[in-house]
Order: sequence, then structure tokens, then C-alpha cells
Amino acid sequence: MVETVQWTEDGVVMIDQTRLPREEVYVTCRDYREVAEAIRSMVVRGAPAIGVSAAMGVALGVLKASEEDLDGQVEVICETLAATRPTAVNLFWAIDRMKRLYASLRHLPLSEIRERMVKEAQQIKQEDIAINQAIGRFGADLVPDGKTVLTHCNAGALATAGYGTALGVIRAAVAAGKRIDVFADETRPFLQGARLTAWELQQDGIPTTLITDNMAGHFLKSGRIGCVVVGADRIAANGDVANKVGTYSVAVLAKENNVPFYVAAPISTLDMTLESGDQIPIEQRSPSEVTHVFGVEVAPPGISVENPAFDVTPSRYVTAIITERGVARPPYTESLRKLVSMPASALP
Amino acid sequence: MVETVQWTEDGVVMIDQTRLPREEVYVTCRDYREVAEAIRSMVVRGAPAIGVSAAMGVALGVLKASEEDLDGQVEVICETLAATRPTAVNLFWAIDRMKRLYASLRHLPLSEIRERMVKEAQQIKQEDIAINQAIGRFGADLVPDGKTVLTHCNAGALATAGYGTALGVIRAAVAAGKRIDVFADETRPFLQGARLTAWELQQDGIPTTLITDNMAGHFLKSGRIGCVVVGADRIAANGDVANKVGTYSVAVLAKENNVPFYVAAPISTLDMTLESGDQIPIEQRSPSEVTHVFGVEVAPPGISVENPAFDVTPSRYVTAIITERGVARPPYTESLRKLVSMPASALP
Repeated sequence: MVETVQWTEDGVVMIDQTRLPREEVYVTCRDYREVAEAIRSMVVRGAPAIGVSAAMGVALGVLKASEEDLDGQVEVICETLAATRPTAVNLFWAIDRMKRLYASLRHLPLSEIRERMVKEAQQIKQEDIAINQAIGRFGADLVPDGKTVLTHCNAGALATAGYGTALGVIRAAVAAGKRIDVFADETRPFLQGARLTAWELQQDGIPTTLITDNMAGHFLKSGRIGCVVVGADRIAANGDVANKVGTYSVAVLAKENNVPFYVAAPISTLDMTLESGDQIPIEQRSPSEVTHVFGVEVAPPGISVENPAFDVTPSRYVTAIITERGVARPPYTESLRKLVSMPASALP
Repeated sequence: MVETVQWTEDGVVMIDQTRLPREEVYVTCRDYREVAEAIRSMVVRGAPAIGVSAAMGVALGVLKASEEDLDGQVEVICETLAATRPTAVNLFWAIDRMKRLYASLRHLPLSEIRERMVKEAQQIKQEDIAINQAIGRFGADLVPDGKTVLTHCNAGALATAGYGTALGVIRAAVAAGKRIDVFADETRPFLQGARLTAWELQQDGIPTTLITDNMAGHFLKSGRIGCVVVGADRIAANGDVANKVGTYSVAVLAKENNVPFYVAAPISTLDMTLESGDQIPIEQRSPSEVTHVFGVEVAPPGISVENPAFDVTPSRYVTAIITERGVARPPYTESLRKLVSMPASALP
């Protein structure tokens, strides 16, 4: 299986997700600025993978930092990485975790700070894989046997350190012997579904059918879809979910057709400081993502474009939120608070 | 303004809609088989434009037919053209009209049959433009002033002999002084919105913003969309609407957000022989439309694909159907029957 993000002696190595599935190319980021640029340009994407990458970016920054004004340098490193993308909260969660660790280490010799920061970033990566496997175990039970699972965007191994959130649920359901197949929305404009989800599941031998985003409603109405499972970029305290643009539409169409709509995400995706999804910042990306496909122009020059990268699904459309600590159901204000405050010993 | 379909001395001339907006290339069909192929390969598309093209195809067939077994030849011409695409009923309506005319002329000399058939095809084209202008007049009243109109696919001049159905409503609203702008769904896989609607409206100077299909829900929720207007490929007696895939999703999302959803279509799009939309045949097109964009592969080789070209919107999501004879509202079984049986003298 492909490694999304790796810590190596040369730097942080990522598979270039802008070029999949046409080419399997790896990018080596040799300083934290290159990590920031890789996140911004979506060489690496997916909320958990961004978190892991940012943690490694901080570690790489500290590794290359000089002794003089280390506090100031760490501040700049963290700010640079935090400024890359606004919506996925895992980015800020990971940077904060690295910052807090640094604060506890700053009295130590630089060599020891470096070693501990690098170890922490690698630890965040390992934890992410374990978290996804736990999400998969909880989620597998919810997947109806003998039907099709619809997913949007890529919440797979490529969106995480490995295994995936939504695709982790699908992998766990298949491993548990459920006879399911997958419908993958192509997910314009970046085509994460066509390029990444289809590719990942194909490599795993899980039967997958690619559809355009606007076909999801038609198939939800047809009765063949047993459930929808998607990932999340940020979840507010009331259970509103920010995720790849188009998720809201799928959620409304699922509810209209009585198909359960599940969100699979680690606890680090919860932003309990936000009362509702209205407060989640939505990233606007370049018009060229919409007007060009692999460099080919598909619209008349000069046309206006809107390109919000995410939308917010109000919690009333969400059947359940699957985390590594268990499954939250409405009312989410209570169920999510309970999961967040769960002691670490209760983890699977 | 561009001419979608023209009758010329050399044959039936069409602008090649597979190559817009990158190239303005015209295709000349010199016999009816070439017209059939142009319809099948979507050089010309859009229910009314297909109807006009098929009528011209029948005329061209008769023009080139020999005296021997003319009845048999006409039969083959009509069958060939009818076998091109299954969903848009305007195709069959136009062929039937030409067939009925032929039946009334078959005792006449071939030269006169030819002349009358060619005239009829040209007449169908002229009527289509007048019909669209009437649809525009009825529809313009329904468009809220000062807001955005969302449309899906291309129901414009390029989908008709000229002026358009849904875009005719928009053109008429602008002509009536309404301050509106347009959001155009790009409409995967064939990108009629990005390639054709954006281009058409840009040429008319109507402010247009291109979005991907999966963004429509986000903007319908935002409150900026005043109404949705789309075309139709076939409407059943109960008001169920077959139209470009994705229309159903937009209709559900419009209803969920209390945004009126209008269908603009000529009476020839009504199929009163079908009780409901469940009986409308849905065309499945080539997987390569989904996996390739202008020849560029966007998905892993060998992936399964579904590619239904249309979906059916149940009439409960349709606020009104705008025709050249007036606006039908629920219950459609009654309102549509009334419009269909309206005497020709009542036409605008």
C-alpha cells in the first residue's frame, strides 16, 4: 500500500496527490516551507493527512532551526503552516499539539528538543492509523450487508496516515465479510473521487463504480444505496459537518430517500469551540480548478467562477458520527461532548 | 448569434457542440445517416434541437431518396433517426410529424413531396424559435427580480433552434428589465453548462457564474438563488420530468430550501401516453464520457462506471411547468391535459 506521508532522513516525503492516478510520483519536502506549500497546493490533502503533515512540518522546522531565538522561529514555523488552509481543523489541532510539546521542552538542549519533536510527529502518524482502524471497527456494524455504499471525495488511506476514515469503515465492513460494493462520486473540481478513491479501492480489490457527482441523487432514489459514508474537515459542537463541497447535497438527498448518512472522523476533527457550522471558515480556491481539468480548458475564457472547497451539512441530516471512541447520535451537543471528555483509558 | 441547425443547399449544417467553446466548427450532414450520427454523438443535443435536426434528417433522406419503394425508404430513414437517442420525446414527435405529412403526400409526384417535406422541416425550426419566445414571455414573470437564477445543463439557443427554453426564460426576464444573474452548473460528464450555457450567456452579456454540480446545494442553501429554471427531455402526463442527469438533485435541494423550481419546455416535450416518469426510458451512455475529459483520462484505467444521461424528477418537486401555451401548476395531470388540448387559435 502507498504511504501518504513519511518521515525520512531527506525530509517529509509525500505521494503527489495532484498527479494520481496518472503518475505515482513522490515529493520530498526538505524544509517546513515546502511542507506548507505541499499542503496549500494539495500535493497532500484530507483533514487527517494535513494534520500529520503539519506536525512533521513543525518537526522539520525545528530540526533545521538555529539556536538563536528558537521561540521566535517556532512561532513563524507554526504560523506559516497554519496559514495554508483554513477549513480542516486537524491542521490547527496538530500544530497546537506540537506547540504545546515545544513549550514543555524549551528549557532542554536543542538536540533533545529536536529528537522529541520528530518523535512526536511520527507518533501522531502512528496514532492516526490506529484511530482509523478503531473508526472502521465501530463503523463496520452500521454498513448494511448486500448493498452499495456511496462515498464522496476521498476519505481514504490517502486522506490520512493510512487505512482511511470513511474508506476505513468500508475496508472494515469488507474485512468483516459484508458483501458490499462502493459508488464513488468523482468529486469535482479536484476529482478526489475519480482519481484517489477509485484508485485506492481498485488496488484493494473492493468493487467500485465511478459516477459523476450529479448522479448521486438518481442512485439514492433507486434504492440500491444502503448507506452513505463520508469524512469530515471540521465538526462543530452541535454536529454540523464541514466537508468537501457536495457533501451537503448528498446528505439532503440521502435523507429525502431514507438512506442513512454517516460521517467518519477522528475526535481531532471536532471543534468544540464552535457552537454551529455557520462559524466554520470555508476556503475559496482558485477558479482555474473549475475551468481547467489537468490543464485542459473546459469553459470559455473570462467566465466568472465560484469555488468554495467545502460546504456545511447541518446535523439534522447526519444519522451518526463515527469516531475512534464510539458512535455519536443526535442530539449531538450531548453525544459529542461525552465522547470528547472520555478518559484516554476508555479508548479501544 | 450562432445557428444551432441550418438547412442549406449542401445539407444540414450544425455547429459542433462537442467542440465548443474551444472551437467554433460547423459540420455539414450530407445525408440522413450523417444527421443520425450527429445526434447520436451529440454534435447536436438538447431535446428541441434534436427534434428539428431529425425533421431535417427526414427531409434530407426524402430529398436524396430514389423513386423506387419510397414508402420503404421513408420507413428506414425514420427508423434510423428514431434509434439515435431514447429519452428526448421531441425526436419522436418530430419524426412522427414528418411521417404523417409524408403519408398525406405520398400520392403526389416525388418532386412535390420533396419540396413539401423540406418546407415542413424548415417550418418546424421556425415554430421552435417562436415557441421559445412564447415560453420566455410566460416565464419571465416568474423570475424574482434582484436575485440569481440557477440552471442545469444547457437549455439554451444551442439546445433549440434558437433563443432557448430555460435560457429563453432568462433572456426574456433580462429583456423585461429584471436585474438578475445566472449560476450555471457545469453539468458533468458532458459539461454542457461549462461549455455551452456559460458561452451562450457570456456572448449575450448576461452575468454568469460557473459552478460545479456539487456546489448547487451550497448556493441554494445560501439564499442568493431566487429560482431554478431547467429544460426537459420528456414530461409524463403526471408532470414527472426527465431531464439531464443531476436535475433531480437540484430539484430536491431547491425544495429543501424553499426555492421555486421551474421547468421550461415546449408542448412537444409532453408525452401524454406515459402515466408517470417511471416509464421514461433512460439512456445509458459510454463510460468514457465520465473517465475522460476532452481526451484526458481522469480516473484509473479499468474502473467501472455508470453513466445514465438523464434522471427523472417527480412532479412533487416541480413548482411549475412553463410552456408556449401558458404555465402549468399542480395537479399536473389536469393542468397539462388542459394545455395539450388547447386549440391552436389560443396560441400566443
